[in-house]
Amino acid sequence: MKYLRAEALRAFASQTLQNYKLQADDANTVAESLVLADLRGISSHGLIRLPIYCNRLEAGLINPSPNFAIVTERPASLLIDGDHGMGQIVTKYAMEKVIQKTKSEGTACVGVKNSNHFGAAAFYVVQALAEGIIPIVLSNAPAVMPVWGGTERRLGTNPFAFGAPADKHRDIIVDMATSVAPRGKIIAAAARGVAIPQGWAIDSAGASTTDAKAALDGLILPFGGVKGYALSLMIDMLSGLLTGSAFGNQVRDLYNDFDEPQKVGHFIYAVDINSFMPLEAFTRKIDQMIELVKQSKRQPGISEIFLPGEIEANLAEERLVHGIPLEESTCRALRKLGAANGISFPV
Amino acid sequence: MKYLRAEALRAFASQTLQNYKLQADDANTVAESLVLADLRGISSHGLIRLPIYCNRLEAGLINPSPNFAIVTERPASLLIDGDHGMGQIVTKYAMEKVIQKTKSEGTACVGVKNSNHFGAAAFYVVQALAEGIIPIVLSNAPAVMPVWGGTERRLGTNPFAFGAPADKHRDIIVDMATSVAPRGKIIAAAARGVAIPQGWAIDSAGASTTDAKAALDGLILPFGGVKGYALSLMIDMLSGLLTGSAFGNQVRDLYNDFDEPQKVGHFIYAVDINSFMPLEAFTRKIDQMIELVKQSKRQPGISEIFLPGEIEANLAEERLVHGIPLEESTCRALRKLGAANGISFPV
Repeated sequence: MKYLRAEALRAFASQTLQNYKLQADDANTVAESLVLADLRGISSHGLIRLPIYCNRLEAGLINPSPNFAIVTERPASLLIDGDHGMGQIVTKYAMEKVIQKTKSEGTACVGVKNSNHFGAAAFYVVQALAEGIIPIVLSNAPAVMPVWGGTERRLGTNPFAFGAPADKHRDIIVDMATSVAPRGKIIAAAARGVAIPQGWAIDSAGASTTDAKAALDGLILPFGGVKGYALSLMIDMLSGLLTGSAFGNQVRDLYNDFDEPQKVGHFIYAVDINSFMPLEAFTRKIDQMIELVKQSKRQPGISEIFLPGEIEANLAEERLVHGIPLEESTCRALRKLGAANGISFPV
Repeated sequence: MKYLRAEALRAFASQTLQNYKLQADDANTVAESLVLADLRGISSHGLIRLPIYCNRLEAGLINPSPNFAIVTERPASLLIDGDHGMGQIVTKYAMEKVIQKTKSEGTACVGVKNSNHFGAAAFYVVQALAEGIIPIVLSNAPAVMPVWGGTERRLGTNPFAFGAPADKHRDIIVDMATSVAPRGKIIAAAARGVAIPQGWAIDSAGASTTDAKAALDGLILPFGGVKGYALSLMIDMLSGLLTGSAFGNQVRDLYNDFDEPQKVGHFIYAVDINSFMPLEAFTRKIDQMIELVKQSKRQPGISEIFLPGEIEANLAEERLVHGIPLEESTCRALRKLGAANGISFPV
């Protein structure tokens, strides 16, 4: 395990992406997203993704300089064609647009079609919270989960993210895959050669497995049984189907499908808090709710109760000071990527 | 078990509610909501709720003739004060308002404060789908679940509902509590004197229990562990906190709190499908998705794969023809309620 400074990782990622013809601003956006995930302990969505992004840029499957087109627009809704650019860049742009509309109309939504993997959804939640906007951020993903009772890949781990700003406490940030665990954690387990918990996945024959590699070849299970299946399906209907992007088993896999672009779709709802009450009144009420949660009597063995996103925010604060730990296998891959681009990786 | 015609139950419920000073239109709305739940097999939200509604109307805790006030309004958002009227009436009104705004702006949201138990959320989903609108319907509820790691009541079973219209297949309707099971099912199990499955609840001392009555005195668990906790918290933040209604452990219990009105809050997002693509193109794509799901290879022992809401729609069709089965205990309670109001219950 190596500890690296956030700034060093950000600079490395940005320079590398610029070598693949991304403009500096865009490269900085993607780098920021990856480093935020690593800071928050979501290493599955951090720098570990940089090599595959570069592979797809090199293969011409990600467009380094997309022209975003507004396909349909109404006072409170927007559909954007991402022109197969990086998911982080078009989604940041889509969030900017939806924030503007939300501030003028009270609420708004935006769909994005023809996009790619957009990293950790929390990145866009942070962007909205800074403007006093409550977001719900959804994306579809390559199919790796069965439908309820099925044995074929039909649904992605389709993430669901949400946030609410606090006053003196940490903002609440929900960012979760609709699978029992994010596929990235299984990818990370496979890379480290460690087992995954029982109940996360079934192998390609449909049998329960704790082997991370067998799980990647097989199917990941939705969280919470039939309810997680229903949520994942809903996210695909809004992000993929409604936007005119790929849906069901059509989204191409980031790692394995080099025949065509991913065609990921995203969907964002945003609500202006000021439409309902003054922002300051809201954040104070969120503080009250946080205190109600934190001060609840605890089950035996539980030393502290956490709000969604709190553990991640604590970790980010610590890692800003002490550095971000990266697995040796990740460092090796990044060193190799740097060498291919004439950019030295810090360790 | 007695089988009753939907029309007979609707007439009984409406006449009874009119005896408690509801206007005929309003009484019909509530009756419609209860019968729809019974038709769809969600008996926990059907006629079984009529006696408690009447008790609260009689106690002056539900306002039979509320004046709904628009507290804040912007082009795409609305906050309504329900004036402690029945949840079904104000939510149907809120949905009408949000549908109008959605059709003119592309999307819209509405919050409702000072409401009561609104029955099955699917009722409002059906209302939106008939207009080519995709809804997300949220409500908070009296606290019966712990936060993650806690042993005190902090969160309601806060339902999440969603729908998407199909062309030749049945519309997709998601309607789920964020608890492992709806509290209504535990109420129904307690009424029937049968056990609940392991994993649904803990008793008031924090120990796992299969005793329905002990579960009602104790805590129901969120579905999917920490993810269900996060979703339930989000629903409370939008439905309760953002609307200025009760939240956390402040919502009053339908059955046990006769000191003041419930102060339930609701929140609805709605999207006009035509903002993104023609409705006909969308419903055909939903058909494609439904076929992709239904035709998936099945796990051993699974004879058919169902879409969310499909089992309920099949049941409703059958029950429209063959009648709605009601438990003898429910019939007894309704007979007694009818007798008190000079209205004869059909069986």
